[in-house]
Amino acid sequence: MTASTMTIYDFPKGPYPTRVRIALAETGLDSQVRFVMVDLYTGEHKRPEFIRAKNYSGTLPVLELEDGTCIAECTAITEYLDALGEAPILTGRTAREKGLIHMMSKRAELELLDAISVYFHHATPGLGPDVEHYQNAEWGFRQRDKALRGMRYFNDVLTTQPFIAGDTFSMADITVIGGLVFASIVKLPVPDECEALRAWYARMRERPSVSKQPAFN
Amino acid sequence: MTASTMTIYDFPKGPYPTRVRIALAETGLDSQVRFVMVDLYTGEHKRPEFIRAKNYSGTLPVLELEDGTCIAECTAITEYLDALGEAPILTGRTAREKGLIHMMSKRAELELLDAISVYFHHATPGLGPDVEHYQNAEWGFRQRDKALRGMRYFNDVLTTQPFIAGDTFSMADITVIGGLVFASIVKLPVPDECEALRAWYARMRERPSVSKQPAFN
Ligand SMILES: N[C@@H](CCC(=O)N[C@@H](CS)C(=O)NCC(=O)O)C(=O)O
Ligand SMILES: N[C@@H](CCC(=O)N[C@@H](CS)C(=O)NCC(=O)O)C(=O)O
Repeated sequence: MTASTMTIYDFPKGPYPTRVRIALAETGLDSQVRFVMVDLYTGEHKRPEFIRAKNYSGTLPVLELEDGTCIAECTAITEYLDALGEAPILTGRTAREKGLIHMMSKRAELELLDAISVYFHHATPGLGPDVEHYQNAEWGFRQRDKALRGMRYFNDVLTTQPFIAGDTFSMADITVIGGLVFASIVKLPVPDECEALRAWYARMRERPSVSKQPAFN
Repeated sequence: MTASTMTIYDFPKGPYPTRVRIALAETGLDSQVRFVMVDLYTGEHKRPEFIRAKNYSGTLPVLELEDGTCIAECTAITEYLDALGEAPILTGRTAREKGLIHMMSKRAELELLDAISVYFHHATPGLGPDVEHYQNAEWGFRQRDKALRGMRYFNDVLTTQPFIAGDTFSMADITVIGGLVFASIVKLPVPDECEALRAWYARMRERPSVSKQPAFN
């Protein structure tokens, strides 16, 4: 299986697809993938065909392999891409690295990115009335507050180490980048006093794999 | 680092700790770990010391290494344990296996286990008034319904393959087992017509790594 036969179902500026786009660029696989745009605002990702054939959870991105196998979930796609190379560069080499990277990436989902996503879909107009058939604003606002606490937590982490999971760039950094991309979409600025998080984000946006993404252009 | 120097912060019958206990048994590491009980019903896991020193998200299980490093999140702990052996037996060997196992495990969290957890904490008495300071029952009931749909989805998966992520037992099976353990705690039975899921679960409970867990005894 070579990379040139892969398809990504994509929404180029979306925070989650941006994670996979960064992973593709970091692993040097991006030029070898075909991107197919799925329009979230018309709810293409919630149609029965998409749910059945591509991703039961009805979200983007999805990676489709040559034989039609679909891999959804950013972390799973990143695992896959990272395992195509000689040695992993995003998901850890030793047991300890793997454990810490997976923990910090999951924590960045739970405490930041996914929380902002819930806020967006439940306490703002989200993708609009054609897609957001059920909203729970109270829950959405709770999640927004959780995300703000999450920013402070990741700021604390970055006062003692240069990257989210330790000494090197990893999938966990990519997940926090996704979180801050979404924070900017919903206009939830990183608090001024989170200096370490802001400085880290400025460094991240200097990486070519990050700066070239549609989300930043 | 040898396994005998590891500590697990545990709640023995809990659905999430059960996942890690199964992973320990499957990898043959269980006899080498020290278990420390944390009482969820008194909210020990929400105390500032626990949050700060062990797990920012305030959940169990947490794996503590000899040097004090803490790894939270069942998937991250499973990654760690599985990487201690010669070759992974739970998280996949090839890129394709890794991708599919991570996807199905994440899907089992999103669509089943975590959904039931939200139902438990928000639309039932959960851990009681001393721990459940905020409840959103409407959201909880929505998540219960999502979990019921999730059962039907996993039933469909199991009509065409013997295990959740394909031909072999993996972390994804363990996550669905966690989901059905939690389903039984909240009295959300697997629908009768989900025959493939029921048959798979009966087979799973015959595995020594599963049958010996406190959740089943
Ligand atoms: N858990 C998924 C979440 C993906 C996700 O929420 N993607 C967004 C696009 S940025 C989406 O599809 N949203 C549409 C919706 O939730 O209706 C992952 O990590 O890949
Ligand atoms: N995302 C976590 C969730 C763990 C979790 O929710 N554990 C339960 C124990 S079965 C817990 O600590 N619940 C306490 C609470 O949420 O207050 C993981 O996968 O490890």
